[in-house]
Amino acid sequence: MIIDCHGHYTTAPKALEAWRTDQLAAFEAGTPLPDPDALAIDDDALRASVEGSQLRLQRERGIDVTLFSPRASAMAHHLGDERVSAGWSRACNDLVARVCGLYPRNFVPVCQLPQSPGVPPERCIAELERCVDELGFVGCNLNPDPSGGHWREPPLTDRWWYPLYEAMQALQVPAMVHVSSSCNACFHATGAHYLNADTTAFMQFLASDLFRDFPGLRFIIPHGGGAVPYHWGRYRGLAQDMNRPPLGELLLGNVFFDTCVYHQPGIDLLCKVIPPANVLFASEMVGAVRGIDPETGFHYDDTRRYIDACTALGDAGRAQVYHGNALRVFPRLGARLRAAGHAV
Amino acid sequence: MIIDCHGHYTTAPKALEAWRTDQLAAFEAGTPLPDPDALAIDDDALRASVEGSQLRLQRERGIDVTLFSPRASAMAHHLGDERVSAGWSRACNDLVARVCGLYPRNFVPVCQLPQSPGVPPERCIAELERCVDELGFVGCNLNPDPSGGHWREPPLTDRWWYPLYEAMQALQVPAMVHVSSSCNACFHATGAHYLNADTTAFMQFLASDLFRDFPGLRFIIPHGGGAVPYHWGRYRGLAQDMNRPPLGELLLGNVFFDTCVYHQPGIDLLCKVIPPANVLFASEMVGAVRGIDPETGFHYDDTRRYIDACTALGDAGRAQVYHGNALRVFPRLGARLRAAGHAV
Repeated sequence: MIIDCHGHYTTAPKALEAWRTDQLAAFEAGTPLPDPDALAIDDDALRASVEGSQLRLQRERGIDVTLFSPRASAMAHHLGDERVSAGWSRACNDLVARVCGLYPRNFVPVCQLPQSPGVPPERCIAELERCVDELGFVGCNLNPDPSGGHWREPPLTDRWWYPLYEAMQALQVPAMVHVSSSCNACFHATGAHYLNADTTAFMQFLASDLFRDFPGLRFIIPHGGGAVPYHWGRYRGLAQDMNRPPLGELLLGNVFFDTCVYHQPGIDLLCKVIPPANVLFASEMVGAVRGIDPETGFHYDDTRRYIDACTALGDAGRAQVYHGNALRVFPRLGARLRAAGHAV
Repeated sequence: MIIDCHGHYTTAPKALEAWRTDQLAAFEAGTPLPDPDALAIDDDALRASVEGSQLRLQRERGIDVTLFSPRASAMAHHLGDERVSAGWSRACNDLVARVCGLYPRNFVPVCQLPQSPGVPPERCIAELERCVDELGFVGCNLNPDPSGGHWREPPLTDRWWYPLYEAMQALQVPAMVHVSSSCNACFHATGAHYLNADTTAFMQFLASDLFRDFPGLRFIIPHGGGAVPYHWGRYRGLAQDMNRPPLGELLLGNVFFDTCVYHQPGIDLLCKVIPPANVLFASEMVGAVRGIDPETGFHYDDTRRYIDACTALGDAGRAQVYHGNALRVFPRLGARLRAAGHAV
């Protein structure tokens, strides 16, 4: 079984974008914000939005299930205010829940959080609980920089975030650390801001005792962990110079990396350096890189090919990467898959 | 011959730090700033500051020459103002020039620029010209984020930077893209800010036509290029999706990566993915990571061992990495080495 732990609903019907445009216009104008429940998209439109893209690619690539969350670049927590973010998150999460309801064997929902710059993270708990308890979501995406490239929030290891972590731990849902679009001209979103955030979060975790306070808290660092596995020696050495425990002991019970690395040498390094128990299969299709690599003739983001070809992984390791780790890191996933008829 | 293109004067006598403390105190108090020429450190103190550290490690590791610049983390362009940065840069550059004068076979100087947040980069040209024309410097370190982690300057590809690039091109000196310490609590300096800046700068170059405007401009991206080689497939794919030329054609005549990657798998990936003509040997010793790797029994930053053991490099490629590329990317380096008695 192959579980892709990182997919976004990048192909949502245009009506969603139109609703968002209206919402932001209403915010600017100071008029009443539109109701998320008033977003009218029928099931046929939802089916059409994934049949020719994510579902087709799942079939072609032999991926059984995708953990499916709202489009990351569109979260844009820096726009509007707390109410705007709450309405937008609800609209996006509800739509993702519906897609997952239409295709329960193919998609399992992961939610966007209604973060807003300067707003305490505990204000996201109600939406997280709604998604998990009422709609069966199994995880969330946590934005370490709701400012969109200005990094004005405290580090993820600050007590500022603790109430949300308490809720995550109680609900047994992990978070993927995932920024959104960048409104800082220095940072290209998918070419810099995403990878920088991954690297930044890892170093924050390394320097802190967060997981002593939250032994059950789990984070997936996407995009292959940003720069981290490539610089694993640097991080081992920094931890050592800082008199921190070895990285395995310090972090690897709580921090995981996905496989969104779009060439064979990168995947080979990831699987050589990071223990197989800490790598979760992912492609982020249809996402940041959509073209076909002329060097291989296959899509850059067809990461299954790289994992299959990776000699650093034995059969047992590959099984961990493909499904074992996902079932462990997302404790609610197994029941959801069994309910959909999967044998796990 | 082995040229280390990335070394900082991290072991300067305490008198330098004391001068800086006085300078910042004077700035805060609004009293006259101390004179860089009043910094009294005799030659014996300079010798003592490198004999047991950089020089010893050069000998032990078989490194012939280090391109030597002021301590990157101490540049702290975000402190004080333009005058403060000018005085501090002059003090640091003069000291580096003296060390290089004492050991002309071992060290060749690279300068710090007197950048300051919001101050046009052309105001650095006078110090760059002084260093190159009067003191024989062969390159400079350019900070893409003088704010120290807030990223308030325009991208490196903005015309804001062009006057400095005209000077660099005219003087035939390349720049290493190198941030300084971080005053943003989100970013650990050597564990996040440095690598993020490397990744950020590369993506800025990818998205621009900077090198059409400056065909003779050259940048070294340190720390193995941040996240870039690990995500080389992502960058090839992003360029393709953006209808940019292939990366080789677009960037590799002007952008180079150093080898400050502190474990064998990282160096192996770098040398497999990036053409040997674009990789410059470097260790950044004595720098960010100072310990001994218990897995190898050698210093993490003893990068020569990784390059020697890297099977992706043939003899010709290794010669390029060790000295050929440095002599090409730093056009003024050859004459300086010949004057010091090296056969190049």
